[in-house]
Amino acid sequence: MAIYPSIEIEIRVRYQETDGQGRVHHANFITYFEQGRTELLRAAGQTYRQLEEDGLMLVVAELNVEYFRPARYDDLLRVRTTTTGIRGARMEHAYEVYLGDDLLVRGRSVLACIDRDGRPRRVPRSLYPAGWNAGSLRD
Amino acid sequence: MAIYPSIEIEIRVRYQETDGQGRVHHANFITYFEQGRTELLRAAGQTYRQLEEDGLMLVVAELNVEYFRPARYDDLLRVRTTTTGIRGARMEHAYEVYLGDDLLVRGRSVLACIDRDGRPRRVPRSLYPAGWNAGSLRD
Amino acid sequence: MAIYPSIEIEIRVRYQETDGQGRVHHANFITYFEQGRTELLRAAGQTYRQLEEDGLMLVVAELNVEYFRPARYDDLLRVRTTTTGIRGARMEHAYEVYLGDDLLVRGRSVLACIDRDGRPRRVPRSLYPAGWNAGSLRD
Amino acid sequence: MAIYPSIEIEIRVRYQETDGQGRVHHANFITYFEQGRTELLRAAGQTYRQLEEDGLMLVVAELNVEYFRPARYDDLLRVRTTTTGIRGARMEHAYEVYLGDDLLVRGRSVLACIDRDGRPRRVPRSLYPAGWNAGSLRD
Repeated sequence: MAIYPSIEIEIRVRYQETDGQGRVHHANFITYFEQGRTELLRAAGQTYRQLEEDGLMLVVAELNVEYFRPARYDDLLRVRTTTTGIRGARMEHAYEVYLGDDLLVRGRSVLACIDRDGRPRRVPRSLYPAGWNAGSLRD
Repeated sequence: MAIYPSIEIEIRVRYQETDGQGRVHHANFITYFEQGRTELLRAAGQTYRQLEEDGLMLVVAELNVEYFRPARYDDLLRVRTTTTGIRGARMEHAYEVYLGDDLLVRGRSVLACIDRDGRPRRVPRSLYPAGWNAGSLRD
Repeated sequence: MAIYPSIEIEIRVRYQETDGQGRVHHANFITYFEQGRTELLRAAGQTYRQLEEDGLMLVVAELNVEYFRPARYDDLLRVRTTTTGIRGARMEHAYEVYLGDDLLVRGRSVLACIDRDGRPRRVPRSLYPAGWNAGSLRD
Repeated sequence: MAIYPSIEIEIRVRYQETDGQGRVHHANFITYFEQGRTELLRAAGQTYRQLEEDGLMLVVAELNVEYFRPARYDDLLRVRTTTTGIRGARMEHAYEVYLGDDLLVRGRSVLACIDRDGRPRRVPRSLYPAGWNAGSLRD
């Protein structure tokens, strides 16, 4: 049984991220998710910057988001990011955004690993969480 | 059989919308979708601003996006937005973003209509496309 | 006496560009200015994309903005952009943002022309407005 | 002699904040400045949210920025924000953004304090740094 690697970060809502409804604009949660992925990589001893220096890019292929409650300016959010699968050129992540105990937003993304010419490339072994087998999506 | 009201708008990619990959950052398509909805409303003789002045808000409850090909700075994109359903307090839209004949991104959203206290309210009859029956999701 | 080349574009305010005050967030005017420069270049038969393909970049070195009145969601703004000077590696622009006859925001920027290694390079002759002498800032 | 209250915060550059040049887009530093002001207020025992609940808003009236060096994705920036003056309805701040010992960007803003009808209102005494006299710009 594999352990799903997960990380929790705090994000303070910026004024610029709110909209005329006084709520965080829904597109900004996508950016919070991305920050979660960045810190998950870093916790695993990698940075996305290194990956790009090696000629690889991770691009978002699919995105699903459910919005349950609004976030507001100056809220201190907790964003939990989990790697839920890797197979071939694809990585799957899940996201949960909390304010206190309230789940505000839940998301899921599929990333594709490509090279500079846009061709799909296997997710490098170094991005696999410890204990995961290469090639397994959810092992 | 209902006709799905649809509108196509052009959006010129801004430099600020690209990211370090030289591509439009994936979160910005969410903003393009929103612009499509705005213009669909306006074409129907409504504005979202009026709606807010009447004490109602449309908030995004659900979002699904598939990314097929990248968009780049200065590309002139076509964004097609279609109302695909209305039922009770919920509206459903579909989005397609094209560059020339290439489909770059496809999306779908569910909006919830709420009042200032956050309570769900029926989508006002004035937002129904001509020929649609109130209460029907996909009639 | 030189003629200052100028262009006026229309920008419809996006919901995502407003903030919790119900006004366009002040940072977004910087993006409107950039759109103005893009269209000024295009009107002169150039695109910024071409410039980058030639290995040159224009980077913002200085920015000054005065905010007089707010812009709101769905406002149709007019942005007037004027090239006010070129000297060596530097270009100067002025910006005015109007709603109807009201001047909302006024700005000024200095851009530096650099190559891929970050070294300053003379603004290419092709970017000079007709009738301007190379090397002149305000001739 | 007054002490200028100052705060230093760290900001990790998000991928979404870079542009096609691989650098932080210049408009995003304006958002970093705003975050600095937020934290300066909080350190003084206030929040901007409270201020809005009291019916007051701070709006940006003037902005000046000088860009010396680029910031890149994942850089850990230090943003130093200083209150440099208060007089009547106006507050003045200075900003410096560092990467290590390098000064990347320097800025200055003038904020206006207004009420919900847009009328200028004296900056509330509670926003004055300890030891500052009401009415003094730089005392």
